[in-house]
Amino acid sequence: MKISKYPDTKPEEDYPGVFRRDIIAAADGAPNFCMRLFELEPGRSTPYHTHPWEHETFILSGKGVVVSEKGETPIDKDSVVFIPPDEQHCFTNKGNDALRFICVIPIVS
Amino acid sequence: MKISKYPDTKPEEDYPGVFRRDIIAAADGAPNFCMRLFELEPGRSTPYHTHPWEHETFILSGKGVVVSEKGETPIDKDSVVFIPPDEQHCFTNKGNDALRFICVIPIVS
Repeated sequence: MKISKYPDTKPEEDYPGVFRRDIIAAADGAPNFCMRLFELEPGRSTPYHTHPWEHETFILSGKGVVVSEKGETPIDKDSVVFIPPDEQHCFTNKGNDALRFICVIPIVS
Repeated sequence: MKISKYPDTKPEEDYPGVFRRDIIAAADGAPNFCMRLFELEPGRSTPYHTHPWEHETFILSGKGVVVSEKGETPIDKDSVVFIPPDEQHCFTNKGNDALRFICVIPIVS
């Protein structure tokens, strides 16, 4: 069993102002999926892209939008976002504070 | 893409005072894992048990403990708990407010 606080995990800056912490990963013994915590600075965005795996996402704090081929949908605390495989998406922070969310993906070897 | 707020999902009372919402599930098209949100009333606990799948857990609010064969470990907002397959565990609310956490499990057919 691993018990920690999320700030104990060192963040990686994947893109400018987009910080990712792998809070539960293969290195911890996770056999199937990886839990990450993202923190986006105000105005920052993840890339608008697609990939053959899903995202299961829960918004912890902040205000933003999820962008899909159908447009923008507002998200904030307690929002739940499921992005199926191969669907275009990005997350953008539209607020004045950090946009923080959990994002779980499968571990692919 | 599914975008909702977690209270939109109807809770199931798995055990007295232990409420589970399947916020992203196979019915939503999730291919590999299911995201659930648990809410435990003060004093309530999940059963102390084991099973052959893992839990990846993030504490949203409240105060409690995780119980393992090694004893009790305090948890609260921003705690991260990884429970490997086949490890004894339960979550107990030791606070005066609800203990709320995300818990992701694999979908097994």
